Amino acid sequence: MAKRIVLALGGNALGNNLPEQMVAVKKTATAIADLIEAGNEIVIVHGNGPQVGMIQSAMTELVRSDPQRYIPCPLSVCVAMSQGYIGYDLQNALREELLDRGIDQGVATVLTQVEVDVNDPAFANPTKPIGAFMTREEAMRMVKEREYSVMEDAGRGWRRVVASPDPVGIVEIDTIRSLVETNHTVVACGGGGIPVFRTQGHHLKGAAAVIDKDFAAERLAEQLDADCLIILTAVEKVAVNFNKPDVRWLDTLTVKQAREYIAQGQFAPGSMLPKVRAAVRFVQSAHGREALITLLEKAAEGIAGKTGTRFMR
Amino acid sequence: MAKRIVLALGGNALGNNLPEQMVAVKKTATAIADLIEAGNEIVIVHGNGPQVGMIQSAMTELVRSDPQRYIPCPLSVCVAMSQGYIGYDLQNALREELLDRGIDQGVATVLTQVEVDVNDPAFANPTKPIGAFMTREEAMRMVKEREYSVMEDAGRGWRRVVASPDPVGIVEIDTIRSLVETNHTVVACGGGGIPVFRTQGHHLKGAAAVIDKDFAAERLAEQLDADCLIILTAVEKVAVNFNKPDVRWLDTLTVKQAREYIAQGQFAPGSMLPKVRAAVRFVQSAHGREALITLLEKAAEGIAGKTGTRFMR
Repeated sequence: MAKRIVLALGGNALGNNLPEQMVAVKKTATAIADLIEAGNEIVIVHGNGPQVGMIQSAMTELVRSDPQRYIPCPLSVCVAMSQGYIGYDLQNALREELLDRGIDQGVATVLTQVEVDVNDPAFANPTKPIGAFMTREEAMRMVKEREYSVMEDAGRGWRRVVASPDPVGIVEIDTIRSLVETNHTVVACGGGGIPVFRTQGHHLKGAAAVIDKDFAAERLAEQLDADCLIILTAVEKVAVNFNKPDVRWLDTLTVKQAREYIAQGQFAPGSMLPKVRAAVRFVQSAHGREALITLLEKAAEGIAGKTGTRFMR
Repeated sequence: MAKRIVLALGGNALGNNLPEQMVAVKKTATAIADLIEAGNEIVIVHGNGPQVGMIQSAMTELVRSDPQRYIPCPLSVCVAMSQGYIGYDLQNALREELLDRGIDQGVATVLTQVEVDVNDPAFANPTKPIGAFMTREEAMRMVKEREYSVMEDAGRGWRRVVASPDPVGIVEIDTIRSLVETNHTVVACGGGGIPVFRTQGHHLKGAAAVIDKDFAAERLAEQLDADCLIILTAVEKVAVNFNKPDVRWLDTLTVKQAREYIAQGQFAPGSMLPKVRAAVRFVQSAHGREALITLLEKAAEGIAGKTGTRFMR
């Protein structure tokens, strides 16, 4: 019954800052170790919203403090740093939890680049806010000096917005596969992966973009030929009429139903919508593939078919 | 004739900032690809002095800009970030160079923790300056508030100093070995590795330390049972009477000779001395192990016995 599973961890699995992350990864490690102890092969994809925002803000403050010496740090480099930052805590917590259970198995973080298409329409319509708030004047200067896209964010100030293109392929897929096949639990595609696009020849160039981690996890699950994609979030099941008196929690969701609910606007963009889309995409990609959306601490029960929302072709 | 080689890259292989790094890694990739094309298994260890300094400074500026929101970032976390930052550029440049030569082989960066001994005498005598310069007042506040060790640095201001303990073991050694054995070129132990020490049970705690990358490379080479440790630096050979009229460049160096020269103070601490020590340590660790100190662009000739300083038991 052991399965190859790609887990996409939600923001609550990591917390919003250093002390929160230290505490959160322990709980996360316990839940993941349960899945490993049950014999499953696990690959972990995590988000990085607060973390890459913090790193980007730090690099911006550094340039402010000494503009002669430092230049702005590309977003792709900030994502690479965030993979180191989060992977370190996550692999360490998981390694410790496994050893405490007598499971001596490798846990590895693979620095992962994810290819996107330079012609992805997302680049023409950047929507994802990142980094620190700016004044209007700062924002306009960034537009002029660095060709940033910016937008006013809910009266709280101006922020940079970047594209969120679709992941086309995982550059380090062979590395991840090698490690899974030699009995490792792998942390990969952190923050959706370092976004790169192909220029001439074999060159990969960093993109000023952030890839949605659920879509990156889906692509990774396809390329790894995983049995199951589990998208972990803050609710036990997907709901229609969410936050309304007639809320209905869903045990299963067919591709057809999911499409209807999406058309009805049932799922919030930037929240449940990409998760549902990623789950649909995975079950559609080949026969026999499962997708599940649930809480981290319910993942084991979810795999056993006892809870969560299961997607069906 | 193919060998398993651990390469320790000097600072010049990476440059001092983002634009320098982009250029430097291309040259570095060319030289390393020559070794791979010749059939050798290569594991790369790099330094991170300027990079971790930059990251530490950025995180310090972030706290200064918003002390209510952010807390200081532990040095171990900064090292983890630097592994992401440097590994991304390095693996990318190497991947491209190999593909341009028609070599389709995995290149992977493994986030690496390196264990140190909490009782290492280095912790009682921190010597390695890191991060931004501070005023005397700032430095004294850091001593009081964060228990930093600080020192005045050559009239340029005050800096934090940290311990540089000996690496005891590579936590992710099995991961690195799995990848080498499945035909990957691996970037590991970046910046000497994320320094951790064992507390109770299986817990690893980040240490406020920086591990010398040459000693980390040596320990990695031992644990990987490598044939050869190559320490790359800014000179073609090790010299005695360096920078003097009677300078003598050395083709070979026995353990006994090396010890005598060390006792004479022939090698500069923090520069050639740790490299010579690491090379001596490796050839002494088992029969048949080679160590070489030379220029990056002379590495292939060095392996062929045509240049560099070769260490002998």
